[in-house]
Amino acid sequence: MKEKELINIIKNISGSEYIGDDCAYLNDFELVVTQDSLVEGVHFSLDYTDGYKLGYKSVMVNLSDIYASGGIPKYITISLSLPSFADNSFVEEFYKGVKDACAGDVKVIGGDLTGSDKIFVSVCALGSAKGRNISSRSKAKEGYKIVVLGLHGSSAAGFQFLKSGSKDFSNKFIKAHLTPEIQSDFAINIAQTVKEPYAMMDTSDGLMDALSTIANESGVLLEVDFAKIPYDGDIKQFLNWEDFVLFGGEDYGILAVVPEKYDIGGTQIGYAKKGLGVDMLLNGKKIHYSKTDVENKIFNHFNY
Amino acid sequence: MKEKELINIIKNISGSEYIGDDCAYLNDFELVVTQDSLVEGVHFSLDYTDGYKLGYKSVMVNLSDIYASGGIPKYITISLSLPSFADNSFVEEFYKGVKDACAGDVKVIGGDLTGSDKIFVSVCALGSAKGRNISSRSKAKEGYKIVVLGLHGSSAAGFQFLKSGSKDFSNKFIKAHLTPEIQSDFAINIAQTVKEPYAMMDTSDGLMDALSTIANESGVLLEVDFAKIPYDGDIKQFLNWEDFVLFGGEDYGILAVVPEKYDIGGTQIGYAKKGLGVDMLLNGKKIHYSKTDVENKIFNHFNY
Repeated sequence: MKEKELINIIKNISGSEYIGDDCAYLNDFELVVTQDSLVEGVHFSLDYTDGYKLGYKSVMVNLSDIYASGGIPKYITISLSLPSFADNSFVEEFYKGVKDACAGDVKVIGGDLTGSDKIFVSVCALGSAKGRNISSRSKAKEGYKIVVLGLHGSSAAGFQFLKSGSKDFSNKFIKAHLTPEIQSDFAINIAQTVKEPYAMMDTSDGLMDALSTIANESGVLLEVDFAKIPYDGDIKQFLNWEDFVLFGGEDYGILAVVPEKYDIGGTQIGYAKKGLGVDMLLNGKKIHYSKTDVENKIFNHFNY
Repeated sequence: MKEKELINIIKNISGSEYIGDDCAYLNDFELVVTQDSLVEGVHFSLDYTDGYKLGYKSVMVNLSDIYASGGIPKYITISLSLPSFADNSFVEEFYKGVKDACAGDVKVIGGDLTGSDKIFVSVCALGSAKGRNISSRSKAKEGYKIVVLGLHGSSAAGFQFLKSGSKDFSNKFIKAHLTPEIQSDFAINIAQTVKEPYAMMDTSDGLMDALSTIANESGVLLEVDFAKIPYDGDIKQFLNWEDFVLFGGEDYGILAVVPEKYDIGGTQIGYAKKGLGVDMLLNGKKIHYSKTDVENKIFNHFNY
């Protein structure tokens, strides 16, 4: 199943102008809204995670989308479907993880609880857009700088460790995979500082996916110097570490393409130029990635 | 797994004042929000339904909650998880059902699409509370009248027909189960007409569940005359038809407990009195149902 092909079908039938960005921006309510799900056997396995970590991550992946839109997360609803083996203590641990991810700032306002064969979590997050400059993946412009925050490839490396049998939950890569940090302050600052339209996304589907999406939706060429991308040096123990950094996914970094004049922190990794797609400068070569190149190379979820 | 027990765990951990009503009311955004999921093998089976009907019902069950809160549905997000057998045409049919349920008034603004072993649908619906008197299940008062709209028991009867092998999709009971109508105009009118605090719920978990919930949350006794409850007379072909009417669920009627002075249509089935729980007048007898009586008797979902 090709997700992007199906999303086009959905767009055509529903005729919705909202589908495209990770969050929908509802001007009439000054609200940003997102919904993301985690499915056992597709996005996680109880061999590697537990109720607490699952609750934590389910919330974080949605808050990350709200921050990346430029909004401030306020409320979440949670739909949780559980097999009969999941007892009260699993639900307690799950909601402790939810609570810690919410960190007192975000309120759980509802949802439902049903039975199922496999664990299924779907979170809907609502964020305030009041007085904020909301981002769009289609608003990058020629001459804008490309800025990123967050180490890339660490989550994919952590997943490799887990798959190879490691149970070392203090390992930094495994932590990055199971209980990801998100870059809230960085995103909040950008949405307050930048006055013009701009592009911002989290890198939950991989840095290259985010670059390619912004480039193609905005109609610009994003030229990136691989050497400037932030990653943990220890990742080089993996043979295909460069693929982890570019395509790994689930790092929940923030990628922003904004006017150069703004001092917003993070690491500048390149510029938006005339053209289309992504040019990656890697080991002295310039590799061009069209939209199709990236779609064909992207990991179709982690193989749990 | 006892859902009500688990919801108490969730309430305690998250300390949320919002969990209780089917919809959360967000005063700061003048918004009502709900999320409900349908799980293959728990809430539906592809032996009885198809993509179109599933899409339609997934939306309707959420819109019903928004209307019952007194809000006007505006936006939905949809998380859809599909096994590999579900091809593009399934997704197309599903979204045609979604579109027809939205009827031009409600916009699909996002969500996600993932793989899974079984079909899983989770819809989050947002409704406007602007200028409206939002209901609460805890606001029924002594002296208020009990009013209901919608035939009760039809969905449970339809499910019985389906389980017994019927494929007659023009049968009124089967239609009531697979593509339920919801009572939007009735609920809209109540939320505009009634000025005092009042209680309103849809009867998605059964009429008795709704009666018992309002009675116990409001601290009143709801005295109901069974003979006045609207149902389709043909339901009497089932031996336990009275149970279908009271406990069947998935009829998506509206139950409102409001001051007597308002002429709001529907059928008055009784009064709120001093006391606690539900008194049902049935065949010349008065049967009292405490909260526990109802919880022990309620169907734990339909057995798909």
